[in-house]
Amino acid sequence: MLSNHLQNGMETARLVWSRLPNTEDGEFDAVGISKKSDGSSVESLDYEVIENYAYREEQAQRGKVYFVYQVAVKWFFSLLIGIGTGLAAVFINISVENFAGWKFQLTFNIIQKSYFAGFLIYVLFNLALVLSSVYIVTNFAPAAAGSGIPEIKGYLNGVDIHGILFFRTLIGKIFGSIGSVGGGLALGKEGPLVHTGACIASLLGQGGSTKYHVSSRWLQVFKSDRDRRDLVTCGCAAGVAAAFRAPVGGVLFALEEVTSWWRSQLMWRVFFTSAIVAVVVRTAMGWCKSGKCGHFGAGGFIIWDISGAQEDYSFQELLPMAVIGVIGGLLGALFNQLTLYITHWRRNYLHKKGNRVKIIEACLISLLTSVISFGVPLLRKCTPCPETDPSSGIQCPRSPGMYGNYVEFYCGRKTEYNDLATIFFNTQDDAIRNLFSAKTIHEYSAQSLLTFLVMFYTLAVITFGSAVPAGQFVPGIMIGSTYGRLVGMFVVNFYKKLNIEEGTYALLGAASFLGGSMRMTVSLCVIMVEITNNLKLLPLIMLVLLISKAVGDAFNEGLYEEQARLRGIPLLESRPKYRMRKMTAKEGCGSQKVISLPRVVKVSDVASILRSNKHNGFPVIDHTRNGETLVIGLMLRSHLLVLLHSKVDFQHSPLPCEGSGIIRHNFNEFVKPATSRGLSIDDIHLSSDDLEMYIDLAPFLNPSPYVVPEDMSLTKVYNLFRQLGLRHIFVVPRASHVIGLITRKDLLIEEENEDLDTVELQSTSRSTP
Amino acid sequence: MLSNHLQNGMETARLVWSRLPNTEDGEFDAVGISKKSDGSSVESLDYEVIENYAYREEQAQRGKVYFVYQVAVKWFFSLLIGIGTGLAAVFINISVENFAGWKFQLTFNIIQKSYFAGFLIYVLFNLALVLSSVYIVTNFAPAAAGSGIPEIKGYLNGVDIHGILFFRTLIGKIFGSIGSVGGGLALGKEGPLVHTGACIASLLGQGGSTKYHVSSRWLQVFKSDRDRRDLVTCGCAAGVAAAFRAPVGGVLFALEEVTSWWRSQLMWRVFFTSAIVAVVVRTAMGWCKSGKCGHFGAGGFIIWDISGAQEDYSFQELLPMAVIGVIGGLLGALFNQLTLYITHWRRNYLHKKGNRVKIIEACLISLLTSVISFGVPLLRKCTPCPETDPSSGIQCPRSPGMYGNYVEFYCGRKTEYNDLATIFFNTQDDAIRNLFSAKTIHEYSAQSLLTFLVMFYTLAVITFGSAVPAGQFVPGIMIGSTYGRLVGMFVVNFYKKLNIEEGTYALLGAASFLGGSMRMTVSLCVIMVEITNNLKLLPLIMLVLLISKAVGDAFNEGLYEEQARLRGIPLLESRPKYRMRKMTAKEGCGSQKVISLPRVVKVSDVASILRSNKHNGFPVIDHTRNGETLVIGLMLRSHLLVLLHSKVDFQHSPLPCEGSGIIRHNFNEFVKPATSRGLSIDDIHLSSDDLEMYIDLAPFLNPSPYVVPEDMSLTKVYNLFRQLGLRHIFVVPRASHVIGLITRKDLLIEEENEDLDTVELQSTSRSTP
Repeated sequence: MLSNHLQNGMETARLVWSRLPNTEDGEFDAVGISKKSDGSSVESLDYEVIENYAYREEQAQRGKVYFVYQVAVKWFFSLLIGIGTGLAAVFINISVENFAGWKFQLTFNIIQKSYFAGFLIYVLFNLALVLSSVYIVTNFAPAAAGSGIPEIKGYLNGVDIHGILFFRTLIGKIFGSIGSVGGGLALGKEGPLVHTGACIASLLGQGGSTKYHVSSRWLQVFKSDRDRRDLVTCGCAAGVAAAFRAPVGGVLFALEEVTSWWRSQLMWRVFFTSAIVAVVVRTAMGWCKSGKCGHFGAGGFIIWDISGAQEDYSFQELLPMAVIGVIGGLLGALFNQLTLYITHWRRNYLHKKGNRVKIIEACLISLLTSVISFGVPLLRKCTPCPETDPSSGIQCPRSPGMYGNYVEFYCGRKTEYNDLATIFFNTQDDAIRNLFSAKTIHEYSAQSLLTFLVMFYTLAVITFGSAVPAGQFVPGIMIGSTYGRLVGMFVVNFYKKLNIEEGTYALLGAASFLGGSMRMTVSLCVIMVEITNNLKLLPLIMLVLLISKAVGDAFNEGLYEEQARLRGIPLLESRPKYRMRKMTAKEGCGSQKVISLPRVVKVSDVASILRSNKHNGFPVIDHTRNGETLVIGLMLRSHLLVLLHSKVDFQHSPLPCEGSGIIRHNFNEFVKPATSRGLSIDDIHLSSDDLEMYIDLAPFLNPSPYVVPEDMSLTKVYNLFRQLGLRHIFVVPRASHVIGLITRKDLLIEEENEDLDTVELQSTSRSTP
Repeated sequence: MLSNHLQNGMETARLVWSRLPNTEDGEFDAVGISKKSDGSSVESLDYEVIENYAYREEQAQRGKVYFVYQVAVKWFFSLLIGIGTGLAAVFINISVENFAGWKFQLTFNIIQKSYFAGFLIYVLFNLALVLSSVYIVTNFAPAAAGSGIPEIKGYLNGVDIHGILFFRTLIGKIFGSIGSVGGGLALGKEGPLVHTGACIASLLGQGGSTKYHVSSRWLQVFKSDRDRRDLVTCGCAAGVAAAFRAPVGGVLFALEEVTSWWRSQLMWRVFFTSAIVAVVVRTAMGWCKSGKCGHFGAGGFIIWDISGAQEDYSFQELLPMAVIGVIGGLLGALFNQLTLYITHWRRNYLHKKGNRVKIIEACLISLLTSVISFGVPLLRKCTPCPETDPSSGIQCPRSPGMYGNYVEFYCGRKTEYNDLATIFFNTQDDAIRNLFSAKTIHEYSAQSLLTFLVMFYTLAVITFGSAVPAGQFVPGIMIGSTYGRLVGMFVVNFYKKLNIEEGTYALLGAASFLGGSMRMTVSLCVIMVEITNNLKLLPLIMLVLLISKAVGDAFNEGLYEEQARLRGIPLLESRPKYRMRKMTAKEGCGSQKVISLPRVVKVSDVASILRSNKHNGFPVIDHTRNGETLVIGLMLRSHLLVLLHSKVDFQHSPLPCEGSGIIRHNFNEFVKPATSRGLSIDDIHLSSDDLEMYIDLAPFLNPSPYVVPEDMSLTKVYNLFRQLGLRHIFVVPRASHVIGLITRKDLLIEEENEDLDTVELQSTSRSTP
């Protein structure tokens, strides 16, 4: 049937056709962009494309060499992503630690004389930092607000959100998070770092930013979305690896949380990127140890080392640990729900009023945070220092400007400390270190912890969604470790055992809150272990995470899913909806009419079809000799636009085009620009002569899109769509007959042949001696 | 077209048809077993089935309750798998440690008097243990030989190998590995434990062993292959978690190495199982600490704790570490190649001669191992003990019968030790502990390490493939840590720095050899960290693994892939072959003729068709009113056999059957028995009356198997097949027209509706106050 079709005056197209069946899905799909009716760009996952270009363009001349070159470039880019993200993380860390260090040093110096002057300085310092952050974000890089993880997740799921991977977003994210984290808001720098890694990866993938003229031609190797998405996955892993200094956690985070379509080859490259990040960060740390980085340099590769903490646990402790899990699930789910409401309200009422409101809002939050973190400890009565062993290295109160427990703040005597200031009036990193710390039983009073929990939880909820780069990991750890330590205090009092450390419970609390809010499992577990360097608590962390995730799942979805949904990012979940079981593919298509194109189509028809609807794909139908119709492929809107724009393929004859010089196009024209919205039909000027001409679509269509019979269950269609990362599926009538059946054996034929060769070889080499 | 078809005298089938489109792939596929021409059973991955049963059978009556019950049972089974595997691991560990402990204690006691008598005892003890192991394996559980990981990998990839998941295999694996590991062979118990976990999971999944009458009806919840495979995945993770006491490593091993089709929901359950294993093992350890377990009880949850080792590294060290990576890649690839040759030779020449040869072979290997491990240290001159700080707790020589470094063996004076005996004449666990040990610089001479490396490498290669349960992890760690320590010695001598520990290099060597041989990345990395409790070396382990895997990949495939290939397990790799790009689906079908069945088919025709070929699936073709043919679905051989066997669906009329009482079958009949080979056409007796009757296939076929157009690239077909875990794909002609197009938006409709509800709800709830 097909060959009839070809013989039917289409000899000239044979050359092209003979090539097309060798290609893979996303052939040209890969380079298309499509617009949803609401104007946001939605784009598919398209894979296996660069190989096609390589194959089609280069095979004859360069072949294997080009392939090796491609692979080498991929690995080189992974290396660059690792180095870039590592350096960005180090830069952010050094800046934040220094700003925060100066701030606290200055404040502590001044409060020796006047608490009021100190308060003013503290407030203004914070305000200035937050203002710089929100100013950068609102005026320069609006996409840099928030954590960015829901958007990246959407991107890797196949949804392109305008602007999230721009160069300006990268800059906004880096400097914005320095301001927001340094300014003492209840947010972290981890989510933004993931976004930073993704931006670096994406910019590398498209060969630099075209807008800022830092692009380079030789870098533009990756024309396909698939390769770009792979790079972005590497970038995400690098971000986590850099943020938590947790390379394996980074790989698992990319695997579990952000990516939708995972291949083992990619895992290998992601792993490499993470390892590079680890080395870069480690090197920077080593360099900083000599004191060249100002206030930065106290930490090691492990952020909150508790390897000296509790090593063992008894069975009675499992009950309070389970309680921590339940609390984590409840508070986490509540956090998700509250932030959902507040973000919804912000988006619909507050942020519509423009940038000025956003700036004022952020400043007010900064003021509130400063007042609470400075003021509330003032109200707290100081506690006398415990009698400590001088050899343990724990000072009470600690020397001003140093890091450590037992902060002296507004205390009458020099041998007293303020337990609330120890956690509140401190950088979050140090506060967490203090909460996790072992050998400091009874450092905090239950009242202080409870006050802090309520205050900080509220601040975290309010801060979430304001127009500054904001991660949720560190606030989550803060909240979790507070109630964890609270539970730990009760356990210590109740069981009266010596080998229980409150810090252990703080760690479990942190894990439980993150589990209850973000609903990650393995990656979170590994991250917690990597940031605390205590493997012995691993089984406990696992159990707590299981409980808190289960409890949280009973109420709502994970934080990122909720936020993605709110932002209108249509994530395809891994599991089809239950209702789809009762629907067929035909019912799933919706009511939109299918608009088909003939193989050779008049330009005016194309223009009017493109104007009349918003479809992104058009089936192309041809006629066989005996008058039957035949679906010959899928033509994308974006490719039609390129054809109309370039005009080189226009022909006067309504017959299929000649064989020679069929592809007058540089394939690069079809590559979608990553940082612009692509062509629109209204941008294209067509003269009346042009409109009278024809285009032969055969060389430009995807000759074999996936098809499903009309009465297939929509669940099956969903799985096909999701698993293969498709964009268009044709729903067709049931076939009249079956030409062949493909089974596992058929797909192994080649391998078996190769095997035989190998085995033959082995037998030969064995029989010779 | 379809509705015409139905109206065309097929009213009676409407009820059935109306149900069928709601079902998913593998509808009945799931319960089929198929036989390859070589007699081995090859079976597909079939998913989403139990829900269908639930849906179809139970929806009306029980609905949600049944669904909750299903989920609860799944989790309960995960719990049981965790407990079972944990207990099995503890049992194996206690037995091995005790046998080995008695052996070494006895030998050490006797060699105080006579080295010859000690040697005899040592040899006989080993021989007895190995003999018991090989006897169990050869006579009772042939499938228990080897590591079992390639077979499990094949099973999860969709290939069923007869017998690997039997109850007797489980027993053989447990007792066999006690014998083989206790008997001092150069093999480990880790691979067998993975297999053990998988067996436990599979037996639970089918509700016990039917053969040994320990099955229970209420346990038989899991009728679908998909659920069984999920359970087996949990079992694998549990095995690794128990073997290495590495719960996260177990999850990642299951993810990276064994499973082919991964869902995030499954990860969650696997994670739970691993956590349970950790708790069980931890509990047993705690119980054993009080001395109730004989020689077992020295170790903690971490097997080889090196947390006190080198914390930092300088850049000059990266070069020797890279060298270790290269050596690991080379030796690992060589190991894979040598074992491939030797296994090939064994299978084709040696093991064909029967069990007697296998037993003799294993005994000879045991003798050789005993002679070398006893004899070679004898030839080595003893070394004077170094001057050690008594407070460090290191004894030289160690007291007889104790574990530790500096073994006194055939030394003249009491202040000497034999460095070769320290690693050779010891259990492998202790040897590795000694090799990893820090603060013992210059314990080993280069000569001893080199001797040991050559000897042990040879022994490991020879032992591989003999008829005993054999894991490759511990031997790999032994080999790797030996050359790692060797490199470490040179580094210590060359750089003359104090903060370099030879043990660190031993650890990196171990990682590099495993990476070079097994080619795992993330899971191996996490396992190495978990078994040594040293997170600070993580970046180094990652780099070494990257190098060794890259070097190894240049030569051959990973150990398990090579072994699977040799055993004829046709693994579908994640990446299609390059040659497939040039082939179309039609070319991929091979030359076998498609045999179609009509909807209502004569029993005699079915019988003759089933006898005449070995196909496992048959397209069913029906005619519409206007005489056109229409493919209405796929009928499986196994279901035809069930229909022929039960005979209840036979009818006299050649017309489609009546609507009422269509499904006379209990669906359980279609469930494939996991531990038998299923029906064969020769087992079924059909009388001549039977042969004249008809069957209406409509209720039993899979109404919408996946289809591909004839000229689709085979690569695309491969991806479809592999990603969705299919078994049959129909190759059909191109469609004549397109009924509809499914895009992301269509698949989100339902979700958007729900979203709107939610958002509406939120707006409402927000606007009320």
